[in-house]
Amino acid sequence: MLDQALKAANAGVAQSDADLFEELRIPSISALPEHRADVRRNAEWLVARLQKLGFKTSLTDVQGGRHPVLQADFVADASLPTLTIYGHYDVQPPDPLDLWITPPFEPTVRDGRVFARGSADNKGNHMAAIKAVEYAIAAGGPPVNVRFLIEGEEEITGESLGRYARENAKRLATDWVLVWDGGFGEDGSPSLTLGLRGILYVQLEAVGPDIDLHSGVFGGVAPNPLNTLAHVLSALKGRDGRISIPGFYDKVRKPTADELREWERPADYSETVMRLSHSRALEGEADYPPLERQWARPTLDVHGFIGGFTGEGVKTVIPSHGMAKVSMRLVPDQDPDEILDTLKEYVDELTTPGVKIEVRKLGGTRPVLMGGDHAAAKAAAEAFEAAFGRKPRLVRSGGSIPVAIDLQEALHAPMVASGLPEADSAPHSPNEHYSLDHYHRGIEMLIRFMYALPTKRER
Amino acid sequence: MLDQALKAANAGVAQSDADLFEELRIPSISALPEHRADVRRNAEWLVARLQKLGFKTSLTDVQGGRHPVLQADFVADASLPTLTIYGHYDVQPPDPLDLWITPPFEPTVRDGRVFARGSADNKGNHMAAIKAVEYAIAAGGPPVNVRFLIEGEEEITGESLGRYARENAKRLATDWVLVWDGGFGEDGSPSLTLGLRGILYVQLEAVGPDIDLHSGVFGGVAPNPLNTLAHVLSALKGRDGRISIPGFYDKVRKPTADELREWERPADYSETVMRLSHSRALEGEADYPPLERQWARPTLDVHGFIGGFTGEGVKTVIPSHGMAKVSMRLVPDQDPDEILDTLKEYVDELTTPGVKIEVRKLGGTRPVLMGGDHAAAKAAAEAFEAAFGRKPRLVRSGGSIPVAIDLQEALHAPMVASGLPEADSAPHSPNEHYSLDHYHRGIEMLIRFMYALPTKRER
Repeated sequence: MLDQALKAANAGVAQSDADLFEELRIPSISALPEHRADVRRNAEWLVARLQKLGFKTSLTDVQGGRHPVLQADFVADASLPTLTIYGHYDVQPPDPLDLWITPPFEPTVRDGRVFARGSADNKGNHMAAIKAVEYAIAAGGPPVNVRFLIEGEEEITGESLGRYARENAKRLATDWVLVWDGGFGEDGSPSLTLGLRGILYVQLEAVGPDIDLHSGVFGGVAPNPLNTLAHVLSALKGRDGRISIPGFYDKVRKPTADELREWERPADYSETVMRLSHSRALEGEADYPPLERQWARPTLDVHGFIGGFTGEGVKTVIPSHGMAKVSMRLVPDQDPDEILDTLKEYVDELTTPGVKIEVRKLGGTRPVLMGGDHAAAKAAAEAFEAAFGRKPRLVRSGGSIPVAIDLQEALHAPMVASGLPEADSAPHSPNEHYSLDHYHRGIEMLIRFMYALPTKRER
Repeated sequence: MLDQALKAANAGVAQSDADLFEELRIPSISALPEHRADVRRNAEWLVARLQKLGFKTSLTDVQGGRHPVLQADFVADASLPTLTIYGHYDVQPPDPLDLWITPPFEPTVRDGRVFARGSADNKGNHMAAIKAVEYAIAAGGPPVNVRFLIEGEEEITGESLGRYARENAKRLATDWVLVWDGGFGEDGSPSLTLGLRGILYVQLEAVGPDIDLHSGVFGGVAPNPLNTLAHVLSALKGRDGRISIPGFYDKVRKPTADELREWERPADYSETVMRLSHSRALEGEADYPPLERQWARPTLDVHGFIGGFTGEGVKTVIPSHGMAKVSMRLVPDQDPDEILDTLKEYVDELTTPGVKIEVRKLGGTRPVLMGGDHAAAKAAAEAFEAAFGRKPRLVRSGGSIPVAIDLQEALHAPMVASGLPEADSAPHSPNEHYSLDHYHRGIEMLIRFMYALPTKRER
């Protein structure tokens, strides 16, 4: 059945392109109110297409949201495991328009690439998945049940999908999740994102004297909350990049040997990072290479501080209060709430007499370890290698992918985060484009992926 | 001749009061443009009075200034030493007017005190001095030459007097300076201010990456100028209140044994300072008592800092730059410029890789040690004791008295800083008042002071 599906895909190339182009003509710009109808039209276009394939579909307007969540289920056999594929049908605004060589919503092929807003992010990805399922159905498959969750608020950081997933977690139980919104690496290899850092974001509010004081009179005796904040911030992370919160590293999980091998980089990689970060030197834990520090080591950054007199010139004030915003990027298996508790105690210890520092939590997200050892990751790796002739790189993300965290927290299923566009495909920029070769091989990869998955339910 | 002068003063009490009240009726409010003519009228009123006594006078409008500087010289004998007495004829605005029991420019005596704006600050002081010289002249004196420098910009922190003193330094050569703008201590004792702290005020400007970065991507490798500023600020002054700038304490002069004895305070003095500073605890060098820390120990305070994201909520930015304002209060014989040089080198050392911190000087004033060992201080102490029956307290000021520093830097003469009003005389507040007993005894004190000075030139 795999072979038949691949044969169907091969025979259908022209239709695959035509279908993608049809979706690319819909200006589904979620940020712009005047395109609201277009965004909905895109959702309905997908619904119609999926219904025609035999999917059971729903479009749900989630309370407080702007654009509906599309769910589509193809149940091949209730006893088979289910693969959930995530995507989004909304796109970024195309401006500045005058930088586009051809209009953003008139897909145009040049040099084997289709140029259009949304081609790489994310229509090229989810259309490859829909076409893969279509060809699998034509061949009598697919070998697993397939569910699409396609949202319309990715580009506006909407909360509809997260809420939908949490509210329908039971109904959405799945064996694997494919977060299909990524792309290839800079070196031209496919990539699997195996982990995401979490975050604990706090605000430190320091209060010293009840009123601002004159430093001539009270300098040397009155507590100064800005000096104290500096002591605390300085103590939290040493000059060596080590965070001193007690127990902070206890739950840090080492990357696997596979990952570490994958993350080896040439000796001049530091210079690459310096260039990318517009920095004159790198900082951080010297005993970990930069890439490991970015992906698999926790860190702490002061994002902002303010206090006292900050205007032009001089004012000799001992200010009554000051504030700092600080976050810690967390890695598996650190827990933001546990760390918050320890942090509060630790800041209390670090505070100097006469200064009270309140630690206020502004946000917290657990780190996510998707891992590369589960069936879906292995199936994806094999499928990429077969379709593209290159093994995927095993990577992580130093930041968070909100939807991955939402789906992980709601569904607790093994996850693969990846995608098809080339690294230089300019998503969010003028002349966004998508390699049709990647599209065609991607459909093949996705067919192979489905057929490489276990046919026994894993949950 | 002393006795005759004192007798004349005694006989002239009613006239002394009348003369003071006459000056108090002039609303010489330097801050308010609509009173500009009144300010000048007050200066001219003083000129006329001093000329009548035989003073050679001048009123000088200094370039860039608002109100003229009055200089008046009574040359008893060119070979005698010269005492320069500083005062100011301008007053604070009287508002809020509705809190005054009697109008601010209608001097009214209640309970032995005259209530009027300027009564304590500074007309009551300089009129006592003028009357003292007048009675000394009547008795065939005074035993030294007397110069008044009375300015009209003290309440608006004008620069006329400082500039005048610097530009005429040679002509203004003097043996002693009496900065006659202070008052009595809280315990009812006269006080001599024997030293002032200086200051070095700097701005630290930290630059890390050339652009703001995303902490998800670059947290752990990119230099963060806010973390680095915290390290530097924390290192400059330890939690024990000790400043770590190399050589910072090398030139710190210990207070004299007399001063230290004078500065002894009851065990609960810390609580007094806590109350006055609205603080829940004191900080600073534990091996020095609070008063010594306020008056005779250098310190370092962060007056303000700002950088990165300081709005509501969260932003995960590694900011490109941050800024802090810091001053060091300096004590005799520390030199602000020497310390600035060392500070710059030290901050360079403390900076972390990839962050450059520029130290920009915003202000610097040398500390002043007036000392209590010179003839004028001894004469003032004796005269206070004789006139008031109490030895003056030997105090210092933790802040700066700009005019004292101006005069010290221009004239390099031994200096006494003191004055007559009671501690609770409410200068700058409604119902400012001045004890007539202090006024009368003050005239006596000033006569005795002049007669207690050496008659040999000291310069």
